[in-house]
Amino acid sequence: MSISKNTRTLIHRALREDAPCGDITSKFFGDKHKIVSGKIIAKTGGVVCGLEIAAYCFRKVNFQTKFSDGAKIKKGAILATIRGRSNDILLAERVALNFLQHLSGVATETHKLVNLLKGTNVKLLDTRKTMPLLRELEKYAVRCGGGQNHRLNLSELVLIKDNHLAGLKSSDLQKRIKRFRFWRRNKKIEIEAATLRQVQNFLTLPVDIILLDNMSAAEIKKAAALRAKLNPQIKLEISGGVTEKNIAALAKLGADYISCGKITHSAPALDISLLINAK
Amino acid sequence: MSISKNTRTLIHRALREDAPCGDITSKFFGDKHKIVSGKIIAKTGGVVCGLEIAAYCFRKVNFQTKFSDGAKIKKGAILATIRGRSNDILLAERVALNFLQHLSGVATETHKLVNLLKGTNVKLLDTRKTMPLLRELEKYAVRCGGGQNHRLNLSELVLIKDNHLAGLKSSDLQKRIKRFRFWRRNKKIEIEAATLRQVQNFLTLPVDIILLDNMSAAEIKKAAALRAKLNPQIKLEISGGVTEKNIAALAKLGADYISCGKITHSAPALDISLLINAK
Amino acid sequence: MSISKNTRTLIHRALREDAPCGDITSKFFGDKHKIVSGKIIAKTGGVVCGLEIAAYCFRKVNFQTKFSDGAKIKKGAILATIRGRSNDILLAERVALNFLQHLSGVATETHKLVNLLKGTNVKLLDTRKTMPLLRELEKYAVRCGGGQNHRLNLSELVLIKDNHLAGLKSSDLQKRIKRFRFWRRNKKIEIEAATLRQVQNFLTLPVDIILLDNMSAAEIKKAAALRAKLNPQIKLEISGGVTEKNIAALAKLGADYISCGKITHSAPALDISLLINAK
Amino acid sequence: MSISKNTRTLIHRALREDAPCGDITSKFFGDKHKIVSGKIIAKTGGVVCGLEIAAYCFRKVNFQTKFSDGAKIKKGAILATIRGRSNDILLAERVALNFLQHLSGVATETHKLVNLLKGTNVKLLDTRKTMPLLRELEKYAVRCGGGQNHRLNLSELVLIKDNHLAGLKSSDLQKRIKRFRFWRRNKKIEIEAATLRQVQNFLTLPVDIILLDNMSAAEIKKAAALRAKLNPQIKLEISGGVTEKNIAALAKLGADYISCGKITHSAPALDISLLINAK
Amino acid sequence: MSISKNTRTLIHRALREDAPCGDITSKFFGDKHKIVSGKIIAKTGGVVCGLEIAAYCFRKVNFQTKFSDGAKIKKGAILATIRGRSNDILLAERVALNFLQHLSGVATETHKLVNLLKGTNVKLLDTRKTMPLLRELEKYAVRCGGGQNHRLNLSELVLIKDNHLAGLKSSDLQKRIKRFRFWRRNKKIEIEAATLRQVQNFLTLPVDIILLDNMSAAEIKKAAALRAKLNPQIKLEISGGVTEKNIAALAKLGADYISCGKITHSAPALDISLLINAK
Amino acid sequence: MSISKNTRTLIHRALREDAPCGDITSKFFGDKHKIVSGKIIAKTGGVVCGLEIAAYCFRKVNFQTKFSDGAKIKKGAILATIRGRSNDILLAERVALNFLQHLSGVATETHKLVNLLKGTNVKLLDTRKTMPLLRELEKYAVRCGGGQNHRLNLSELVLIKDNHLAGLKSSDLQKRIKRFRFWRRNKKIEIEAATLRQVQNFLTLPVDIILLDNMSAAEIKKAAALRAKLNPQIKLEISGGVTEKNIAALAKLGADYISCGKITHSAPALDISLLINAK
Repeated sequence: MSISKNTRTLIHRALREDAPCGDITSKFFGDKHKIVSGKIIAKTGGVVCGLEIAAYCFRKVNFQTKFSDGAKIKKGAILATIRGRSNDILLAERVALNFLQHLSGVATETHKLVNLLKGTNVKLLDTRKTMPLLRELEKYAVRCGGGQNHRLNLSELVLIKDNHLAGLKSSDLQKRIKRFRFWRRNKKIEIEAATLRQVQNFLTLPVDIILLDNMSAAEIKKAAALRAKLNPQIKLEISGGVTEKNIAALAKLGADYISCGKITHSAPALDISLLINAK
Repeated sequence: MSISKNTRTLIHRALREDAPCGDITSKFFGDKHKIVSGKIIAKTGGVVCGLEIAAYCFRKVNFQTKFSDGAKIKKGAILATIRGRSNDILLAERVALNFLQHLSGVATETHKLVNLLKGTNVKLLDTRKTMPLLRELEKYAVRCGGGQNHRLNLSELVLIKDNHLAGLKSSDLQKRIKRFRFWRRNKKIEIEAATLRQVQNFLTLPVDIILLDNMSAAEIKKAAALRAKLNPQIKLEISGGVTEKNIAALAKLGADYISCGKITHSAPALDISLLINAK
Repeated sequence: MSISKNTRTLIHRALREDAPCGDITSKFFGDKHKIVSGKIIAKTGGVVCGLEIAAYCFRKVNFQTKFSDGAKIKKGAILATIRGRSNDILLAERVALNFLQHLSGVATETHKLVNLLKGTNVKLLDTRKTMPLLRELEKYAVRCGGGQNHRLNLSELVLIKDNHLAGLKSSDLQKRIKRFRFWRRNKKIEIEAATLRQVQNFLTLPVDIILLDNMSAAEIKKAAALRAKLNPQIKLEISGGVTEKNIAALAKLGADYISCGKITHSAPALDISLLINAK
Repeated sequence: MSISKNTRTLIHRALREDAPCGDITSKFFGDKHKIVSGKIIAKTGGVVCGLEIAAYCFRKVNFQTKFSDGAKIKKGAILATIRGRSNDILLAERVALNFLQHLSGVATETHKLVNLLKGTNVKLLDTRKTMPLLRELEKYAVRCGGGQNHRLNLSELVLIKDNHLAGLKSSDLQKRIKRFRFWRRNKKIEIEAATLRQVQNFLTLPVDIILLDNMSAAEIKKAAALRAKLNPQIKLEISGGVTEKNIAALAKLGADYISCGKITHSAPALDISLLINAK
Repeated sequence: MSISKNTRTLIHRALREDAPCGDITSKFFGDKHKIVSGKIIAKTGGVVCGLEIAAYCFRKVNFQTKFSDGAKIKKGAILATIRGRSNDILLAERVALNFLQHLSGVATETHKLVNLLKGTNVKLLDTRKTMPLLRELEKYAVRCGGGQNHRLNLSELVLIKDNHLAGLKSSDLQKRIKRFRFWRRNKKIEIEAATLRQVQNFLTLPVDIILLDNMSAAEIKKAAALRAKLNPQIKLEISGGVTEKNIAALAKLGADYISCGKITHSAPALDISLLINAK
Repeated sequence: MSISKNTRTLIHRALREDAPCGDITSKFFGDKHKIVSGKIIAKTGGVVCGLEIAAYCFRKVNFQTKFSDGAKIKKGAILATIRGRSNDILLAERVALNFLQHLSGVATETHKLVNLLKGTNVKLLDTRKTMPLLRELEKYAVRCGGGQNHRLNLSELVLIKDNHLAGLKSSDLQKRIKRFRFWRRNKKIEIEAATLRQVQNFLTLPVDIILLDNMSAAEIKKAAALRAKLNPQIKLEISGGVTEKNIAALAKLGADYISCGKITHSAPALDISLLINAK
């Protein structure tokens, strides 16, 4: 099993959330020797994510799958088969499905948008708008869906916003960037621009990415032209108001990344069930 | 603050998830003496939930709200105002909004369905199909939206499913129920029925609720009639395939509860933002 | 092994309490290859409880028992035999015996009182007067001794006392009960009555049990009569001053339950020893 | 407050054991603004122990006491008065009393035996036969009752038993003691003797105490004589079968310590209640 | 106090390591009302580091300092003055000094080497050869001494070594780098070269840094020339056998970084004491 | 494996410190099926310590050693050979070596001083001047180097310093010692003397050791003479300014112990490497 220790801790907490004092139904009404088998079925098509987590939830029983996270699946696909003690299966079932349904939902939503970027060099990025405590997994689901990850958290990379810039002299900003580069040699710097004038200024700074905040298509185009002229090393990210409808158009304006919160905070669950085989 | 210790632990974990080693942007580019104020705005109408959690996230700054969890809010409503050190606000912002958006989303979805039950005695129940680690909060959001809670977890009440019943003699079932009543005096028993014949049998048992699993409208009606005749103390719950479209009709068939997973596993986030005031 | 995760955590803490930095005697004076065998002997008769816990304490050695928790045992009974590395046995011995002695003591005290209830329908209940941190195990020991459990803790069921009632109007009480029923659908309500007048009032409320607090035999009898007339669904519990001497008489007054704190807070240890066999 | 961090952790665990999800009665039926006062009363005389713990349990309210742990109290004594929010008092009440009742029980039992040793130089020692997880507190209660503590756990001092001695040559034993003295410079060594011959041998070893295991009065007397002659520095401890009846006689045989398990494993709770004042 | 939560946890663990059950000397022989004052004195000159940690250790008393971490101090400098309860000071003293002595030792050793790089653009880097559990603090001390940090741990950036390269085709390596760039957008890649041929190959790859492993001065010079010609964006790091004697010479060979393990794994403590003022 | 649970916890924390989110290089650039072998080589001679810890770090691979902790090793000695999956080895390598290098450094420094005490009865003691969180291991390394341990922490034994004595009447001191002996029967008492007058006084007290604080050779000699005359049971410890140069001379003055902080706080790492075998 290749899931990380952090993820295992998370799964154990989820299992305890669902059975803090055991499964009292199985304890009093189950047969602890009974062996059953079943299958996990996708009732809708999409991109599957969470199979390794499900496998870990079901680690006390036999769990077999032909798919890997990130696989495109059709309606009716048998995602996995399981066989083992009935009580063990019932204890893991709901938790495994809750992970699978949500992460597959995120991967599927991501993939829809990524599909709309085909034929361009633009990458889809996620945001920090994630379910509390599930960020690492959701960001993994985004990658499974073909997206890339924006910063994992406030400690991973710098994103300078207008609130930081307000009242900061340009020379001070440069000093601070230099100081940061000394103290955190391995981290990147992104800066948020609301106007083209800001874009122009920031292109002279030793930053890695400029975020174009809620700019119009025309502005984004001009920003890209400025970048090409002044500093082609710096990347551009489009952010704000991204939807399935406008993403293809946004992708043609010359930026490198488009970020979108909806793929994590509003992805509906993919419909996935466990069916226990009749004897 | 009246949020529980469990919830506080959860919030602290979420805050650490978002800033395991602090906010490096504020550390290097913020001004630790700067005071700002702002407002949390609902960009869509709905039922708000998570204000106490947001207040706890923002506990280092001044946080004021006129609303309580469960309040109906209109598009543009100012959910709260905050004022304090800029760095403190930025550290809490995303986590507070992530909770608020998701829980308000759940409360809003719940409320839509509860509205469709108006004029009946039927109660909407949630399920265990929740986001891992957020179940307690989501169940709270369901109540804020006007729903009630099915079992919190596998340890809270008994739900006997066909898998438990397979191969269990009727006399054995009765013995086990009796044994359970002795050992777990304070817990309730629910039993799942797939056929009317089962409903009829179960109405003779000392159980509290019968779950009608994926039954047709006609079957549900007959089940309710059987219940009225044989054992009016026992409650009936409709489960399976419940949607906004069919819930009003289902509510007229004579059952007491309707349970629905969608309100927790697929509720889109309510659109809520923090706006920092310009000076 | 069927003991719960909570119990395993408790046992590990107890083992660490007894050997925070190992067993320095065995380390310096033991022979780590030496195999010994021994037996756990009851030096008094009673009801045994804690065998699974003892088995877990001794999980590194061979532990065999013919008894189950709840079994009646005679003086001199060999509760278990063990065989394994001497150092492993010495590390677990005291902790295993401490659990066994105390839990068997509780089960034995409980059983004495339950015996006095024979021939009636009255059930013996425990209380929250337990050893700190050992409540779950002591409540299990009570069940092994033939008793039932009152509420596990303040979160499990409602027990409305006079302190809550003081200054609460009757209509308010009803509103609150209704509100509670909505928010905590799965939990029961008990209410404490000090007078017959209160009993009469409470019998009209949608509560599950009425606790008769320190009432005289005559009052209890009248309370039972009122209950039979007004609301036979509601259960009655006798509480206060219960002893081995008066319990048989109290059981004839028409109540359903008698609760008693002594079985947990003052049960003397059952005398149980480990005897290492001479070679 | 002078209680240790370990004890505070223990108390918090006990409080959570009694209210893992809060006090649902107070939440739904209490008045969070209501202030009440009350008194903690001893219903029997004895030696009080646990007042600082009770004070910590009640730390959110005003807690006043005239007594210190170890004080002799009479029946009816008011151990403490409290005043504060009703909900806070109810949340702490049971836990505080459970600690107070048990620890005062241990201190009282200890004191009874210590009284019987008056006029001698013999000290009463406890054992490791304690309630799991409460050892440190029980050993403190023993001291409050006038006793002294045997080893706290298997890591604190060496106690060589016959099981260790079996098959160990005398020269080996000496080598091991020497090695132990090198590696654990600060720890003491006790050795268990079952016969006078062993006592005689052990008196030639560099040990600190000899435990006389289940010896007759005559044997103990001879052991004391041997000690006086051969090695007056080494202490003698009487162990096994000590009761209220024989302890005074045992104390006259020339040993230094008498150890007894009953004072911890079978001490009945001291009867202590909290009385809320009527308005 | 601006020290991070992780560091606070570390300090609390260190305080508990030094007083798991309190300071028994102060408890029995101290005067809990006694107020004393004292000063922390550097008995040798160097670069101070750990003052905020010391301040946190002494947070229960008044702690004043004129210095900041990273300040150069002379022999005899008064690093801080403290005033407070004697028992509180004794409880924190050793832990505070242990941190101060070690971290100042690391900062001082670092600064010696950094001094030898003056007049060049070469930066001194640390390594992962740190004291277990103290890495974050030691890396901070390195920065205080004027050095920069190599990767914090195996998760922060990629360092491809010959062991990874063995048996990996050049085209595979490129594929893997591309894949890594997709999945871990925000992390840097360093690659280790043992020969000039490797340097030449790696300069064609999209990596950030090349580590020159144990190369001779001549080889390093050639590597720098290759870099200037083929890919000036990529940085070069000298590693292996760096000492106070050769570092100045190494700094003239054209690389960007020199890394050295000795500054963390073998830095002698700076001699720092606490002197309690006589009354 | 005989390392304690505390040590295992420490090792796991160190492993997580070095790979909080796994080894990203091995994940993306390693071959998870690749088996390699290697050897751990001492590049300098000394006393080895930490082999069991290294074995635990490498517990997922085959780890073989011919040495035990405390063994004297020569330059070039192969301390251990390992064979296993490349990724597993890389994950443990740095942590294992960091422990080995530091602990062997401590053992080696200790051994140098112990060598200088040969032919005397004087024992070398360590101090509490240790690396935070590594004290237990460093004290073990001291023993491996032939030294003995002073107190492990503030809870293990009493060390009365001048700060405690200031303002304490002689009769009070005696009372407190008596009280301490009652409450902490198993612990030793050491007292610090700065003058011969104090030594003379303390020799009349029931203490175990007197620490001679920064005394001259002449004073130490007189102190030893006083001890021989007045109370030969009490041990004497020399403390302060101990170096490789003066230790042999100090050892001839008649004291029992010499304590020295340098062996833990300033021991340079022993140079130890892991060499992966070429195929």
